[in-house]
Parts: sequence; C-alpha cells; structure tokens
Amino acid sequence: MTLETRPPLPTSARTVFFVSDGTGITAETFGHAVLTQFEMRFRQVRLPFIDTLDKAYDAKRKINEAVNTDGQRPIVFSTLVKHDLSQVIRQADGMHMDLIQTFVAPLEQELGMKSTHTVGRSHNIVDSEEYKNRIEAINFSLAHDDGQSHKNLSDADVILVGVSRSGKTPTSLYLAMQYGIKAANYPLIPDDFERGKLPSSLPPFRHKIFGLSITPERLSEIRHERRAGSKYASIENCRYEVNEAELMMKREGIRWLSSTTKSIEEIATTILQEIKPDRRDY
Amino acid sequence: MTLETRPPLPTSARTVFFVSDGTGITAETFGHAVLTQFEMRFRQVRLPFIDTLDKAYDAKRKINEAVNTDGQRPIVFSTLVKHDLSQVIRQADGMHMDLIQTFVAPLEQELGMKSTHTVGRSHNIVDSEEYKNRIEAINFSLAHDDGQSHKNLSDADVILVGVSRSGKTPTSLYLAMQYGIKAANYPLIPDDFERGKLPSSLPPFRHKIFGLSITPERLSEIRHERRAGSKYASIENCRYEVNEAELMMKREGIRWLSSTTKSIEEIATTILQEIKPDRRDY
Repeated sequence: MTLETRPPLPTSARTVFFVSDGTGITAETFGHAVLTQFEMRFRQVRLPFIDTLDKAYDAKRKINEAVNTDGQRPIVFSTLVKHDLSQVIRQADGMHMDLIQTFVAPLEQELGMKSTHTVGRSHNIVDSEEYKNRIEAINFSLAHDDGQSHKNLSDADVILVGVSRSGKTPTSLYLAMQYGIKAANYPLIPDDFERGKLPSSLPPFRHKIFGLSITPERLSEIRHERRAGSKYASIENCRYEVNEAELMMKREGIRWLSSTTKSIEEIATTILQEIKPDRRDY
Repeated sequence: MTLETRPPLPTSARTVFFVSDGTGITAETFGHAVLTQFEMRFRQVRLPFIDTLDKAYDAKRKINEAVNTDGQRPIVFSTLVKHDLSQVIRQADGMHMDLIQTFVAPLEQELGMKSTHTVGRSHNIVDSEEYKNRIEAINFSLAHDDGQSHKNLSDADVILVGVSRSGKTPTSLYLAMQYGIKAANYPLIPDDFERGKLPSSLPPFRHKIFGLSITPERLSEIRHERRAGSKYASIENCRYEVNEAELMMKREGIRWLSSTTKSIEEIATTILQEIKPDRRDY
C-alpha cells in the first residue's frame, strides 16, 4: 500500500473508511497494517467522533456514495463500541472489518464478564495517571533534548547518547509520547572525544544510558540536508565522529544500536526491551 | 482496563501477550482498545521482533509458562504476517486474537489479489517518502515550538496559537509524529493582548491558524505545577489571559477548541478535520 496521494490516484482506486466513535487512530493504525499487505493504492477517508445515530447515518451515506464514485464497494474498518451505531454502519454497502465486534464478544465469553461498552478509551483519559505521565514525559524530554539540561537526570527513565543527527531527538519524543518514558538525550561531540570521556553529568546514570549509532555515509547524507557542503557534514568528519563515538560507547560499556535502517518505532521498541524502565511492566 | 501496575496486580490477573514480527505497536494499540472494554486489570507482555521460527518457539514457551503462573490461559494479540510463525504461536495454550489472519484472507478475496505476506510495514519504512516527511515534520515542529522561529512559516501545515500551557506543544509534536504535519506554535502573551493584535508574522497565514483555549481553572492548576504561587499561575491572571485570548481569536476569525478535557489525540484529530492540510487526502 502506498499512503502518499501524489501522483493522483487512478480513478479505479478503492476507498477505505476508518470509522470510529473516538479519534479513529486505532482503526487507522490497524487498517494500515493490514492494507500494507496489498500492492494497491487506496483513497483514505477518516470518519472520527461518530458517537450519535445522526452521525452514523451521515457516515453510512458517505460510504454508500463511495460505491457510486468508485464503481466498487469500499473497505470499512470500524471501532464502534456501541451496538446501535455499529449496526447502522454495517447497513452501508461496504466490506466491513469491525474490530470491536469481531473480538469483544469472544473475549466476554473468555473473561466471563460483559464489556462495559463505553465509548473509546480516549474519553476521560485526560484525568488518568497514564495520560498525565505521558504529558509530563513529553515536557521532560523536551527540556532535556540535546543536552539542554543536566537537572533531574535521576528522574530520567532513559538517557540517549550519540553523535549529532543520529536520531536521538525523534526517538526521545516518541518514547515520551507513546509510552510516557522520560527520555533525556545528550549529543556526543568532538570535545567529548578529545577528553575521551562521557559528558560529565552522565556517568552516575550509566545503567540507563543507551547509544544510537549510524553509518558515516547515512550520517553525512542527513547532515548535508541541513548544512550542505559543511565540514560538519563531510564524510571524513562523519567517519571520525562515528568511530570515536562507538569507541567511547564500547569503552564505557554502553549498549547501542545502529539507527541507519531503523524507524523511530523500531528503535524505541528495542530500547524498551534493553533498558526495561522500572515503571513498565515489560 | 487499568494500565498502571501499582499497586501490585492481584495474583489472579490475566496475562496479555502482544506478539509481532515488528514492533508490536499495532497489536498493542488494538489490544488496548479492546481490553479497555473490560473492568479488569491485565499483566502485559510485549514480544516484538518475532521474525524467525526459533523466536516463535521461544514466544510459544513464554505463553505456555503464563498458563502455569496464572492458573488460566493468557490472551494473545498477534500481528504475525508469516503463516509458519503464526502457526507456531497458535499452538500455545492461549486465547488467540490473530489480527492479520482474521482480516487478510477475506481481504484477499475482496481485492482479488494475494497479499504480499511481507513482514510488517515498518521494515524499509525508513526510505519511504512518508517516513521522511514525518522526521522532517518533527524537526520543523521543534524548530517552530513556542514561537521560536518566524522562518518558513509558509511551509507550515498548521499554526497553533493559545495562551502558555494550553497544550500547543504536545499537540504540535503529535501532529508531526503521527501524521507528518508541520505544526508551528505561537504563544499568545500579555504583550499581544495589549497591542490587540496577533503576533506580527501570523496574519498572512490566518487560514491555517488554529487556536487552543482552556478553562482558567484548569490552566491555573497546570501553571501552579510549574510555578507554584506565581502571579503567572494565579486564577485572576489565568482568567485575564484566557478571556483576552478568546476575544482575540473571535475578532480575528480564528477557529479554536477547548483543550480542557481533550487528549492530544482528540485535539489533533479535530484540527485535521478543521484545517484539512493540503497534503492529506482527508
């Protein structure tokens, strides 16, 4: 599946709807994972906040319109918790992938209890501990981005180190946003290599330091996008910095991975497996 | 479902496994949405990167161990694309919710094509346009956080405005990370209220400005956490700022929402519906 919309979609493209009583993010995340298995392009329409019968009828109408426009029925991923709303959507002419109904009923039997059938988890989430932790973690990670602050490092769950542009910032923010992990990050710079030591505030926290490395070629590419033609971006300098950073991490016993071909999701998942922050149950 | 693990889980808690050949984020997102429907607590174990038979057998063993520990079979959410790996996991004693197998086979029939059965979408994603856009958007949003830069505002997809601590920063970062939306944000401050005008670089971009407001009570609470007892956090000052900001947004014809009881996911989804950035197909 290709998610970009340019060049224009062929007129025969299928439409995919993501219908939800909440944000639709679950339906969309899951729909993408499934549709990626197909070498096709899809026109995507998200219909979030479908939480009344009126809105459900409106959504049904939009789905039926797509049949006329496309000449074929659309695919409908839905996460509607309430049965009456889900029933309305199912009346539309589409191929229905109802994520809740498919799995909630068998789970009710397995767990020996009825589901609460409340509308999506995101409601009232703002008052939950989990949500507050996430917001606090985002603020922490921003305040501790790029070595900006040495304060409260004992509160950090993870401290990322690596050369400039090795992927520390997006990874820190992702860890905070997705998992409520307080992730500080520190650049390893030529000053550190000359001293042959980690930035001075870090050694006490070695157990929660994780390194990101990257191939010099890829690093040079990324840095050239920022500062074309600079010494900073030159392949010689990138080779020097990456080599020194890896030597330092080896010497200091710091675990690291190469971010070269890894997405921030993959990097974050690997870090969680390695560091096992105290506050997580896995 | 409660996701926090303290106080300690009752010994009878069910274990839930999220098994994936990739990061497991899809399985986990979906699993949470389904389990939230149940008033129970679960012990969660994520088993990512299960992409070889050896790892699959190891995962199977872990699932079977949970049966002994818990005295009941665990729930297993899986997104394993490869059939042989999925078969191994299904041999384990658990209640299996196989997200791919349940939906991919019917989709193959509907679309009249075989699925590619490649391992998850996150592989090779690093070279995709979509991924590069996301990273670029994160860098843009960081560089344009809190009115730090007036450069390249014409490249912004969305410009958020609002009083300090109304939720602009986490929302901007979420838009960038989840959707590759370049979101700048500008605080509305007493200086702006005295001048009675938007920050001077913003008016040309009014069509993509979106406002966040918040109740003075909630704002005061949030600000007290940062600077307890300050004038900045006082309810009188918060009332003044919120009132002035809302008057300004009305006068300038800027759409806004109240972030008081909304999660960043909900705020982001609403903004996407309202602003409809050019680069998105919905």
